[in-house]
Amino acid sequence: MKRVFNFSAGPAMLPEEVLKEAASEMLDYQGSGMSVMEMSHRSKQFVAIYEEAEKLVREVMNVPDNYKVLFLQGGASTQFSMIPMNLMNKYGKVDFVNTGAWTKKAIKEVKIFGQANVVASSEEATFTYIPKDLKFSDDADYVYIASNNTIYGTRYTEFPKTKAPLVADMSSNIMSEPVNVSDFGLIFAGAQKNLGPAGVTLVIVREDLIGNPIKGTPTMMQYSTHVENESMFNTPPTYAIYILGKVLKWVKAKGGIEGVYQNNLKKANLLYNFLDNSKMFKGTAAKEDRSIMNVPFVTGNEELDAKFIKEATAEGLVTLKGHRSVGGMRASIYNAMPYEGVEKLVNFMAEFEKTNS
Amino acid sequence: MKRVFNFSAGPAMLPEEVLKEAASEMLDYQGSGMSVMEMSHRSKQFVAIYEEAEKLVREVMNVPDNYKVLFLQGGASTQFSMIPMNLMNKYGKVDFVNTGAWTKKAIKEVKIFGQANVVASSEEATFTYIPKDLKFSDDADYVYIASNNTIYGTRYTEFPKTKAPLVADMSSNIMSEPVNVSDFGLIFAGAQKNLGPAGVTLVIVREDLIGNPIKGTPTMMQYSTHVENESMFNTPPTYAIYILGKVLKWVKAKGGIEGVYQNNLKKANLLYNFLDNSKMFKGTAAKEDRSIMNVPFVTGNEELDAKFIKEATAEGLVTLKGHRSVGGMRASIYNAMPYEGVEKLVNFMAEFEKTNS
Repeated sequence: MKRVFNFSAGPAMLPEEVLKEAASEMLDYQGSGMSVMEMSHRSKQFVAIYEEAEKLVREVMNVPDNYKVLFLQGGASTQFSMIPMNLMNKYGKVDFVNTGAWTKKAIKEVKIFGQANVVASSEEATFTYIPKDLKFSDDADYVYIASNNTIYGTRYTEFPKTKAPLVADMSSNIMSEPVNVSDFGLIFAGAQKNLGPAGVTLVIVREDLIGNPIKGTPTMMQYSTHVENESMFNTPPTYAIYILGKVLKWVKAKGGIEGVYQNNLKKANLLYNFLDNSKMFKGTAAKEDRSIMNVPFVTGNEELDAKFIKEATAEGLVTLKGHRSVGGMRASIYNAMPYEGVEKLVNFMAEFEKTNS
Repeated sequence: MKRVFNFSAGPAMLPEEVLKEAASEMLDYQGSGMSVMEMSHRSKQFVAIYEEAEKLVREVMNVPDNYKVLFLQGGASTQFSMIPMNLMNKYGKVDFVNTGAWTKKAIKEVKIFGQANVVASSEEATFTYIPKDLKFSDDADYVYIASNNTIYGTRYTEFPKTKAPLVADMSSNIMSEPVNVSDFGLIFAGAQKNLGPAGVTLVIVREDLIGNPIKGTPTMMQYSTHVENESMFNTPPTYAIYILGKVLKWVKAKGGIEGVYQNNLKKANLLYNFLDNSKMFKGTAAKEDRSIMNVPFVTGNEELDAKFIKEATAEGLVTLKGHRSVGGMRASIYNAMPYEGVEKLVNFMAEFEKTNS
């Protein structure tokens, strides 16, 4: 068996320790005689797994007591409608900062329920930067941003100050660097980048925003349903929550978010420093807004890009093809990507540049 | 390691072969150097896993070409609103046969969108039977039933003939016995009983019912969204689909639904024959409507029930406690429960009866 370094934008690499533990427990979780997949979600064992996962989210992210932690299904795409259905209840208007394909989807969805007010956008520059000097409405139910943009490799290094609750899609950089949860009304993230397998969505929501959905909101789309039943209104995605718990234990063992963040900076700096000094490879995002999770880069020559991707794959550096809207390459270096993976990538890039100049 | 016989109503037992394979592939799926959990849902490997799973559903259930097969998130509880949002588009009225807690939840949800017309109910008899001689409306958008009732241990042995499309919640007996898919407009099932882990919902829907959702239906709640994108509009629950595929391969190897059905009959007959001849234990469902998946039974003495459950657990016969609304015991004997498990249960019941009479 040979493990590769997988630079996929998501689903993405998981810590090897987590996978090993999961494999060893697959037929018998801690003497229960069954897999976690086979357990009733109301069993003592699973309830303990669930409570531990929630506790770890609270501990690792330092979540204040007046926030609820939910494990839901349906991914960020479901949150795009669930959020307005629950929060767009006063003015029928949401302020957006449009920073890419995912905020565009969220904007489109809000229009089903009311007004989507785009206060700023970087679309004219293929979303290569994060708009600054934002002016928000006085009558927005909330302000919506994506903290990190997977496709374009940008991120907020500072979050806007808003009067209305700030809602952030953190799918692609949750728990990769410290954030102050109390600056937000609602934070959500699909698990499949930094938290675990696809199929579970983490939602952290301030209590006062819960319980006032718009008319016609299905029971499953109301946050209050899940709050009142501790995410057990229906069968939760038990196995995905179990893996998420293991990933959070791993984060904690790495020194918590601060520890993981320092390693992420080290990885990102290594790659960006190489890009800034390369004559062949070039990063595509504005320097001041660079993501430390997703690093898109190009050679400017499509044939050379293809050759690079092919040869990198042969070296065990896989899923490096860029998103079709940016082209070139993209290295997603989430929490679980080891420093060695980025080192190997940079060494390979240097060699490739030498051979192909 | 000692595996138990797990009689949980769901999540429930999975075939040991499936779990063993999943464990062995956890760190390296077929030489890819990664877990299926880590794979991009758009990767060649995962697309192949997905297509194989869909092909197996079609093959095992003999799904006609004019039906779409979808793997969604959110469980049956999400279908309770998704179905009316997509199908309740002509008369604003749905006919229901109320056979238990789960149809009641579906009825409650439909009332958000229009009229729920209960044509028959067995609630007055704690849902111990399936109503017969049903008369449906001429102006119902669809007729809704639950083919098997997990809590009460009843099932339709024959499906009603309806003019309007018949919609069936088959969560607790899908693929346990042959059904004619073309008798239905829509079939759905949460995976966590007969198909795989919690977190994926199988939906089989006739093409002509797709594409006309009511106003205000979120994008993720429209079947057409998932049909047009082959369940890849957003990241699907990849690992759950992978396990589901393995379970279906196992079903196929057991002789398909017919093979599994014969084994299910053998298991159910063994247990029901014992119950019918026991002086201590008594089945609670009407004989003619008995489920072959969920078998609730009681002694009539709560203390004795508790003693039975405790001693059975010590023998590795676990999760036998009945639902609080019926009391006593419930043995869920889904496809993956081996005949040996039911045999061991019946032998233990006989011994317990002898010792405690």
